[in-house]
Amino acid sequence: MRALRVADGTTALVDAPIPAAAGEALVRVTLSGICNTDRELARGYMGFAGTLGHEFVGQVADAGGGPLAVGTRVVGEINAGCGACPGCVAGDARHCPTRTVLGILGRDGAHADYLRLPARNLVAVPDGVSDAQAVFVEPLAAACGVLERAAIAPGMAVAVIGDGKLGLLCALALAAAGHAPVLIGKHAAKLARATRRGIETTLAAAAPSRARSFDVVIEASGSASGFGLALDLLRPLGTLVLKSTFHGQTAIDAARLVIDEVRVVGSRCGRFATALALLARGAIAVDDLITDVVPLDHAAAALARAGEPGVLKLLLAPR
Amino acid sequence: MRALRVADGTTALVDAPIPAAAGEALVRVTLSGICNTDRELARGYMGFAGTLGHEFVGQVADAGGGPLAVGTRVVGEINAGCGACPGCVAGDARHCPTRTVLGILGRDGAHADYLRLPARNLVAVPDGVSDAQAVFVEPLAAACGVLERAAIAPGMAVAVIGDGKLGLLCALALAAAGHAPVLIGKHAAKLARATRRGIETTLAAAAPSRARSFDVVIEASGSASGFGLALDLLRPLGTLVLKSTFHGQTAIDAARLVIDEVRVVGSRCGRFATALALLARGAIAVDDLITDVVPLDHAAAALARAGEPGVLKLLLAPR
Repeated sequence: MRALRVADGTTALVDAPIPAAAGEALVRVTLSGICNTDRELARGYMGFAGTLGHEFVGQVADAGGGPLAVGTRVVGEINAGCGACPGCVAGDARHCPTRTVLGILGRDGAHADYLRLPARNLVAVPDGVSDAQAVFVEPLAAACGVLERAAIAPGMAVAVIGDGKLGLLCALALAAAGHAPVLIGKHAAKLARATRRGIETTLAAAAPSRARSFDVVIEASGSASGFGLALDLLRPLGTLVLKSTFHGQTAIDAARLVIDEVRVVGSRCGRFATALALLARGAIAVDDLITDVVPLDHAAAALARAGEPGVLKLLLAPR
Repeated sequence: MRALRVADGTTALVDAPIPAAAGEALVRVTLSGICNTDRELARGYMGFAGTLGHEFVGQVADAGGGPLAVGTRVVGEINAGCGACPGCVAGDARHCPTRTVLGILGRDGAHADYLRLPARNLVAVPDGVSDAQAVFVEPLAAACGVLERAAIAPGMAVAVIGDGKLGLLCALALAAAGHAPVLIGKHAAKLARATRRGIETTLAAAAPSRARSFDVVIEASGSASGFGLALDLLRPLGTLVLKSTFHGQTAIDAARLVIDEVRVVGSRCGRFATALALLARGAIAVDDLITDVVPLDHAAAALARAGEPGVLKLLLAPR
């Protein structure tokens, strides 16, 4: 089969064996989504070697002992746990100490014809959710994860920093949960996507006028300047949710955290069921976030293109 | 009256007018405690100018319209609020946006013969608490503040980093609340003070063997290396309570916060009633933390001495 693999510092579409199910489920990939993390992993982040890709929709090709029949349309939670530690026993592998993560950590990913995952990771896609929508379940679940980690009461002032895909999805997830987030970004054209969906937006250059006025700020810009701006916007006793991963060391004004008794909360993955439910009830429109659907044969070029200005989500289609 | 004042970059005991009560209470100081923050303020931290000192016990000299009679033995919450903002109306001036802070921010402090504070800030000292104990109410309240900011469930593994006064008081406050903290520090002699009080201790050099094993870590060492060690010791989804203020920028591995979904919580001041209750019921012994009681006339020398190795709390006595 074809697989977009990172090896020895280079990333290329190669011919690889179809993975043996080996007690896990085998999924034939219908569509996979290119994430910024893929590009970072290709540049050496986390020392990853293997097949990239952690956003996908596919069809069960081998049930791997699970309840979903061959042919079922599925998405899959990306953290594969040991199944035995307290977190795994509670049905949450996200912090299993020996977990692998699809296309990110010790496990081949979704930019390929087939992938494997433990059967318990698979979630059936409801009929009302298209393949193109379903491939957004992973990033949308990550956005919904903010609500798991921060107790946001009705009426709280909430801001999201970052007008990329992650920031927009966070703002949409918050709005779908009844909040009225303000999306802050550097690009008027990107902010317009949020405005069209009824989200209040403001340019980062104008944000300082709202200093110390937000109860909760979600940092989803991926830049260290976003961290500083988030602290500026937060009121005392407020909560900063760190959504994007920064590489290397980030300099912060730690005294400010103490004096204003701020809370900084890291947030990584969310649960798929939450995100699928939002898509199924039409609460979040994702179709116009897709810039292009590219044949898997052109995966390497698509990975490069994903970093170009104005490009939103690129999907890879094996067939 | 005498007052230890910072002005134009120098700190000296000077002759100053007794403050006019001007609607606030006037307190004749019995004892004041030298805090590391005093030394930092004297070095220019926060651009403070005025009389140093925020730990004290004294006697009411002018009730300032409050209910406490002249002569009542009192301590005083150090944040003086506007009295009208939502926090102040709820009885909590700690985050009043226009607050002054005794001996720290826009308000003369306690290393003097007299100080003033709003009458509502004063708390009567119970008979069973000595003057020497009462002067520890402010730092002990700050230590108890950790319990306000972090939800620590029974049985959670808790560590405190920092074997100075603040770290020790944090460990004692946690133990008094029924937890079993491990105090981590670099100095065997300082750790022995905790061991004598039944607190488990470990040297920082040995701490890495307990990596990722604590649910809650309190950083009270005041050094950036303490921040890094705290992250190392914390399990995924754990809580790091930042207790000490760092100056300038601190470099942190922010990706770690996201991947392990860690929570970082700033904690500054606590409530005095909580700390007084602990002292009144004899739950925390502070007397042997006092290295010396120094006449106020020698305040400047005492401030310098407070930074010497092996010196714990120095108290200033106006009389």
